[in-house]
Amino acid sequence: MGGMTLLNPFHGTLGGMTILEQTVAAIRPADPAALAEARAHQDRLTKPRGALGVLEEVAVRLAGAAAVNPPPLPAPAALAIFAADHGVHAQGVTPWPQEVTVQMVGNFLAGGAVANAFAAQTGASVTVVDVGVAADLAPAPGLTISKVAHGTADLSLGPAMTVAQAVAALEAGIAVARDLVDRGARCLITGDMGIANTTASAALICAFTGHDAEAVTGRGTGVDDETLARKIEVVRRALRVNRLDAGAGGADASGLPSPDALKTLAAVGGLEHAALAGFVLGGAALGVPVILDGVIAGSAALAAAALAPDVVDHCVAGHRSAEPGHAVALDHLGLRPLVELELRLGEGTGGLLAHPLVCAAVRVMHEVATFDSAGVTDKEA
Amino acid sequence: MGGMTLLNPFHGTLGGMTILEQTVAAIRPADPAALAEARAHQDRLTKPRGALGVLEEVAVRLAGAAAVNPPPLPAPAALAIFAADHGVHAQGVTPWPQEVTVQMVGNFLAGGAVANAFAAQTGASVTVVDVGVAADLAPAPGLTISKVAHGTADLSLGPAMTVAQAVAALEAGIAVARDLVDRGARCLITGDMGIANTTASAALICAFTGHDAEAVTGRGTGVDDETLARKIEVVRRALRVNRLDAGAGGADASGLPSPDALKTLAAVGGLEHAALAGFVLGGAALGVPVILDGVIAGSAALAAAALAPDVVDHCVAGHRSAEPGHAVALDHLGLRPLVELELRLGEGTGGLLAHPLVCAAVRVMHEVATFDSAGVTDKEA
Repeated sequence: MGGMTLLNPFHGTLGGMTILEQTVAAIRPADPAALAEARAHQDRLTKPRGALGVLEEVAVRLAGAAAVNPPPLPAPAALAIFAADHGVHAQGVTPWPQEVTVQMVGNFLAGGAVANAFAAQTGASVTVVDVGVAADLAPAPGLTISKVAHGTADLSLGPAMTVAQAVAALEAGIAVARDLVDRGARCLITGDMGIANTTASAALICAFTGHDAEAVTGRGTGVDDETLARKIEVVRRALRVNRLDAGAGGADASGLPSPDALKTLAAVGGLEHAALAGFVLGGAALGVPVILDGVIAGSAALAAAALAPDVVDHCVAGHRSAEPGHAVALDHLGLRPLVELELRLGEGTGGLLAHPLVCAAVRVMHEVATFDSAGVTDKEA
Repeated sequence: MGGMTLLNPFHGTLGGMTILEQTVAAIRPADPAALAEARAHQDRLTKPRGALGVLEEVAVRLAGAAAVNPPPLPAPAALAIFAADHGVHAQGVTPWPQEVTVQMVGNFLAGGAVANAFAAQTGASVTVVDVGVAADLAPAPGLTISKVAHGTADLSLGPAMTVAQAVAALEAGIAVARDLVDRGARCLITGDMGIANTTASAALICAFTGHDAEAVTGRGTGVDDETLARKIEVVRRALRVNRLDAGAGGADASGLPSPDALKTLAAVGGLEHAALAGFVLGGAALGVPVILDGVIAGSAALAAAALAPDVVDHCVAGHRSAEPGHAVALDHLGLRPLVELELRLGEGTGGLLAHPLVCAAVRVMHEVATFDSAGVTDKEA
């Protein structure tokens, strides 16, 4: 109850609990019976035991998350690309001008980005969500406007967001998850667009895992040595200024969202990170699996897991990006990525590539014969 | 001309050249102009340069193979599962009884195997080809009977096949490739079924790469330590008995299939390995890309590349299996696998999983906007 009281100042309540609190409270851990049944099922299928490697565990995890074996086919999928700008852009952490965020939103809406091509390949819908683009966007089909602010403040000078802004962005992400599931999505895929957002991701990963800035800060979309050094220094300064040097976050004993996790997310996250954390929580609360894309999603998932540790049972790591912090985040979450192709694009591209692999893993549980049913002789024990 | 004369005794000619010779002669190396155009095209697309990692090179390779940029979408795909038995089964190299080969053929035809589920996921057709199953199979929809022998002889006692048998199996594979392309396939995927076939694969990989048996022989579908030790000894004996200890194969100066490569394939390969080599050559000769599955396909591709080095330009490595010889084979071929999920099943499962990734890579070249066309600002140089 302490958590609730602390949270109440940040956001209006609904029936005593905020949307965020309701969502966190609805997230269940993996069901042990469904996990056990799925594992036993894998061993009866007409293949050598364990022959599907990592995909067997994916199917088992989804059975646990859905609390039923076989788990539902995770299709159709819906990609949500959360777009926002970053005050830290002013520190020269990227060679890309800030207006590329809004230009790429236009590209997504016109169907011309890589995410659109990959979504078409796996039959996923694409929704773009403005949670914090610095420019005002005209309404357009496929665009959801949930703008919390015109970009964040500069995280290297103080908090990037107020806690109220972070909660508003989290709840925007929850709303998008609910809406997409209402419209038939049975798998959610995280996407992001925000020039300079790998800097915020690095800071979040440092804050939630306790790693040093140098270990988790990467070249993003391709910065040179000088910019990388500046970016590392900016991340260090952000942690120092926001008093996050020693790690932070975590759910408190009440099981309600920890104010520390929210403060951390607000201090060094982006609006799209907060919205992504909400999107992940929202999918998990509805029992719909969420495929995480790259380092932006990974850092947002750290925040989501700090708010609701069981959320991880509902997540699949789509890929591992070339960004060093991503491996650190996945390791902390205990997730193994499915696709490792040195992508460093974001937008949801790695999550989209993983979607057919996840579907294939689940299809096996629905369609493959058992040794008994197919009359295939099992190997000699 | 020396090659032709040497080959003539093995097989009837058609217009002066055998089907195999015609096929080898039709294979073109990657087109340098299309490669260059595809690379330049990648750099104009609305994404940071190189941001699609390994997938950029896949799309570029397919442009080179097709001699046009963008390359055709590699869909629909057709999976061919070549099934055969192995005399070396008698040496106790696997805990699975030999009749599982024919039982699994029944499972494929009934749609109950993992390959069927994965093929359904990516929209690929499934054809099963009996090139050497030990039992006689009844005709059935989806089954092509091209039986060259009722299994191979025991490769640890002498040649597994005669060269004439190997050529017959190669030409059976070529015929399947031609037939599937005639019926509309724009991508071929290799599949295999043959209890004990990882033993033959290990022997082929040793013979074509010069590696020691211990480095390339693995647990296949899951053998214990004692069986693994026996399997390694069997591979060593096969190389010694067949005088292949010092490596072999390679195309001769005429560019025609080398009799040494054929002799090596015949000595320690399986009928499905020979058919797969033909299938790969057949696809390449028609300009249709071939996605290689696991270690069986990798070892067959070594034979194909020894017969026609340019065939590699038309191949995509679908995945890297848990079998140690597979990495050795891929390294020798200069191919980087797309999926690394510790699969060790065969059937074409790894190739099928890679197919949507290959399609996604090519779709980018057709559908993604350029910086100019989308009005997106490129990064500061």
